[in-house]
Amino acid sequence: MSDNTSKMRQEILEIPQAAARLLADGAIEIRRIADELRTKDPAFAISIARGSSDHACSYFKYASEILLGVPVCSVGPSVASIYKAPLKLKNSVSLAVSQSGKSPDIVEMARAARRDGAFSIALTNNPSSDLARVCQETIDIHAGPELSVAATKTFVNSVVAGLMLLAEWSEDAKLQAALVALPEHLAKAAALDWPEVRAAIGAHKSLFTLGRGPGWAISNEAALKFKETCQIHAESYSSAEVLHGPVSIVGEGFPVLCFASGDAAESAVVSIADEIAAKGAVVFVTSDKAHTATQISSIRTGHPLTDPLCLMVSFYAMVERFALAQGNDPDAPRHLRKVTETI
Amino acid sequence: MSDNTSKMRQEILEIPQAAARLLADGAIEIRRIADELRTKDPAFAISIARGSSDHACSYFKYASEILLGVPVCSVGPSVASIYKAPLKLKNSVSLAVSQSGKSPDIVEMARAARRDGAFSIALTNNPSSDLARVCQETIDIHAGPELSVAATKTFVNSVVAGLMLLAEWSEDAKLQAALVALPEHLAKAAALDWPEVRAAIGAHKSLFTLGRGPGWAISNEAALKFKETCQIHAESYSSAEVLHGPVSIVGEGFPVLCFASGDAAESAVVSIADEIAAKGAVVFVTSDKAHTATQISSIRTGHPLTDPLCLMVSFYAMVERFALAQGNDPDAPRHLRKVTETI
Repeated sequence: MSDNTSKMRQEILEIPQAAARLLADGAIEIRRIADELRTKDPAFAISIARGSSDHACSYFKYASEILLGVPVCSVGPSVASIYKAPLKLKNSVSLAVSQSGKSPDIVEMARAARRDGAFSIALTNNPSSDLARVCQETIDIHAGPELSVAATKTFVNSVVAGLMLLAEWSEDAKLQAALVALPEHLAKAAALDWPEVRAAIGAHKSLFTLGRGPGWAISNEAALKFKETCQIHAESYSSAEVLHGPVSIVGEGFPVLCFASGDAAESAVVSIADEIAAKGAVVFVTSDKAHTATQISSIRTGHPLTDPLCLMVSFYAMVERFALAQGNDPDAPRHLRKVTETI
Repeated sequence: MSDNTSKMRQEILEIPQAAARLLADGAIEIRRIADELRTKDPAFAISIARGSSDHACSYFKYASEILLGVPVCSVGPSVASIYKAPLKLKNSVSLAVSQSGKSPDIVEMARAARRDGAFSIALTNNPSSDLARVCQETIDIHAGPELSVAATKTFVNSVVAGLMLLAEWSEDAKLQAALVALPEHLAKAAALDWPEVRAAIGAHKSLFTLGRGPGWAISNEAALKFKETCQIHAESYSSAEVLHGPVSIVGEGFPVLCFASGDAAESAVVSIADEIAAKGAVVFVTSDKAHTATQISSIRTGHPLTDPLCLMVSFYAMVERFALAQGNDPDAPRHLRKVTETI
């Protein structure tokens, strides 16, 4: 397999076009659902997801809380599938995210949320799935078929769909404009692949990824991709949280990758990147404000809520190359299948 | 330092007595606040915390959702401290948990939650802290001074205080009785220290801890303690979530510690423990239902919401011994101080 033919690489390169398709083909439906949300004015939201889709929900959570002030509560599917506990969800909205729409625990929790009073929305790449069937509304993420086991374009489109919903719900013209301009930024981001990060990780089998706010959601997804495609034990933290204990495992040369965007958290993320670099770690950060940590290049979009998606795409491009260089097949991670079904 | 004189060990051995003190001295105040909650009938709760305290909040979340159906939303302190975003918190309760009550981001978020309409409760070992000052109500966890950097008895008492609040709020006589009986079970649990787990981890620098529901909260806390006191990269997952990607790093001999309680999730946790053991990992599980995974001993309390606390105490006893055996000082983890202040 050459590095131009992995399915994962093809799907990363398709991201700008997949996002553009969603922006075009999904707009009317998403606007209709957003109008409904503005009328219903839910007191809070719950999210239901696992894996990459759950990271898309973390992104949605910060965007919802920052833009609208609507708190988003991540509910463990076990509350329905295992504990059979009804929740008080009157005057709430539930967002269940799954590219396949098939995992039984996600379907069960989405069904229970609707039963318990939530206005239920499925966000999926499979609008004929069980998940779509049990929810009142379905948002098709229009990503097209994804064949690599490691999700890339479905993650990005899940985030974009969530941002479209929030931009319409809040009638935020700046975010709406930033989304329209996003595909061209994503295309530039796919051309960055951080060779200095790949060189520094080398044979390290353990590392941290860090971020804050929506950048923390990207960090979560990056850590999962390191595990899936490179068998590296990468773990994600908020750059504040990491100081409350986890930093203790950081020794000389320990790699740390910090996702800083052009948002209110940039200086806080950079200051912790510098602080951890001063402990001897090899720290990279996507910001020109770093002193001790090493800056890596990134594409800025001009909007704080779309910047992290460009970091995501550059990361995907990097990790696919790194996986191949290490002799892993990024399309077929050990122990995994494309659709994971858990209860 | 002998293994009988670490502060961490002394504080682990004090857990039963600290819990008994809280049950005696905290009961009246907690009942009064629970009565207020029953009257206010909040639509949802938010939690505000970092590190071990955040794991206590995860325990509270599952207990609240299972017992009362009240969803609990973990809010990142950055929403207030960095993003300055007001939240819509009318008809909600906020629970801010911090043993020291001092981290500026936690204090700031708790203050903002109250401003934004939440009924605000501080849960702290320091009732004269800034955190207590900015909240409407304070629950003193009565743990007594904790000198080891790694939290143990303050974690257990934070969980017990949360369970006391929920037991009174829901007027659940079974949970109330289980809490009264808890200290004697905790004393038995402190005598277990899982030598087979210590032997199996040996020189491994990476492992997973797993659980489900309240057991997942314990798993989160266990992973943090492995990092803090042993510099081992332990990461916690829900035993369902781990199959959605992370399991890819599990190779031959990879250690996995599964926290199974006598609750509705026991067979699901055990079945995944067995599945991962079949992939060649060395898997331990606190249940007699395992086939491929190895059972380790545990104390059962007769109530699903108190069982996990016994697992926690046995884990603490184990990890303190393991840290010492590895030549680490469990009282003074690398890079950490007792009070971490982040923004």
